[in-house]
Amino acid sequence: MAPLYIALVHYPVLNKEGRVVTTSLTNFDIHDLARTSKTFGVKSCFMVTPIKVQQEMALYIKKYWQEGKGAKHNPDRNEAFSCIEVAQSIEETCLTIAKVHGKDPRLIATSARKSEKTISFNELQQDRATQEVPVLLLFGTGWGLAPEVMAGVDRVLEPIYGVDGYNHLPVRSAVAIILDRLVSR
Amino acid sequence: MAPLYIALVHYPVLNKEGRVVTTSLTNFDIHDLARTSKTFGVKSCFMVTPIKVQQEMALYIKKYWQEGKGAKHNPDRNEAFSCIEVAQSIEETCLTIAKVHGKDPRLIATSARKSEKTISFNELQQDRATQEVPVLLLFGTGWGLAPEVMAGVDRVLEPIYGVDGYNHLPVRSAVAIILDRLVSR
Repeated sequence: MAPLYIALVHYPVLNKEGRVVTTSLTNFDIHDLARTSKTFGVKSCFMVTPIKVQQEMALYIKKYWQEGKGAKHNPDRNEAFSCIEVAQSIEETCLTIAKVHGKDPRLIATSARKSEKTISFNELQQDRATQEVPVLLLFGTGWGLAPEVMAGVDRVLEPIYGVDGYNHLPVRSAVAIILDRLVSR
Repeated sequence: MAPLYIALVHYPVLNKEGRVVTTSLTNFDIHDLARTSKTFGVKSCFMVTPIKVQQEMALYIKKYWQEGKGAKHNPDRNEAFSCIEVAQSIEETCLTIAKVHGKDPRLIATSARKSEKTISFNELQQDRATQEVPVLLLFGTGWGLAPEVMAGVDRVLEPIYGVDGYNHLPVRSAVAIILDRLVSR
């Protein structure tokens, strides 16, 4: 099965008005994505932000749970944080993965909206079973990945449909559902 | 399909040392569970805590997003919060549901561990399709639901298995995955 990576993108993403912005890292996202990634065998979960002090914050939190008081207090969290990495851009994330595997990852965006490049969960699973190319799933914070990101990806994963048309899942829930669908089914 | 309810239980739950405690409500849990519940058509999501001031906090947050500045700032959140309710105990939650449907809900606990009372996702789906009894899924905070709760439920939903034995999903992720499995499949 092709190795699976995820990235939580804080830039470039949209705000409520549709402008491209940089969002802030949140502690909850790092913890939840670390634990969910560890559960489903994700190789690394990248926190992507160009803001130096936010990168340092992510690394500080990781260190606290891996080497600081957190490691003693909760060894499960230590284990989860082993998969957290920090990158300044999607490009840097791709380079890091390419260095490990000797080939660029296939870039798959996630979105609440359907796209011309939509790939279904089943198709992506089949591709992972038959191709050795690493897969990088991109998750947007704020109001979603900027159009420039969507234009550059290979495919867009099909949206998660609810029952009554409400499609405003928290990114933490979307990550959990998508990994479960890709790994457990 | 039988109506689906969920409850996030803050008492009685276990702490790290295995003692029965009351955990604190967190703002993130309320938001995430509201949005995930709304996505998957959950009738109501109960925040269960015996602590009066915590009940008031949950209601204050709900009011902020439904009537206060939050309602204007983000109408999607307003919609999500319509399913949030507060209860002082699991018993009170059951009474509220029984009043709506004229019958007690079937109590299904969730757990990271297998139980003698385990019910699979498929079985629960089939039951919901063929029986009109409302279903109440119980989610524990802290280190999980107390033994006294587990002893009193009708069934325990099968655990979510990851790939390498790591089973410490955040409750927010567990709720998302369980609702997706029960509703989307």
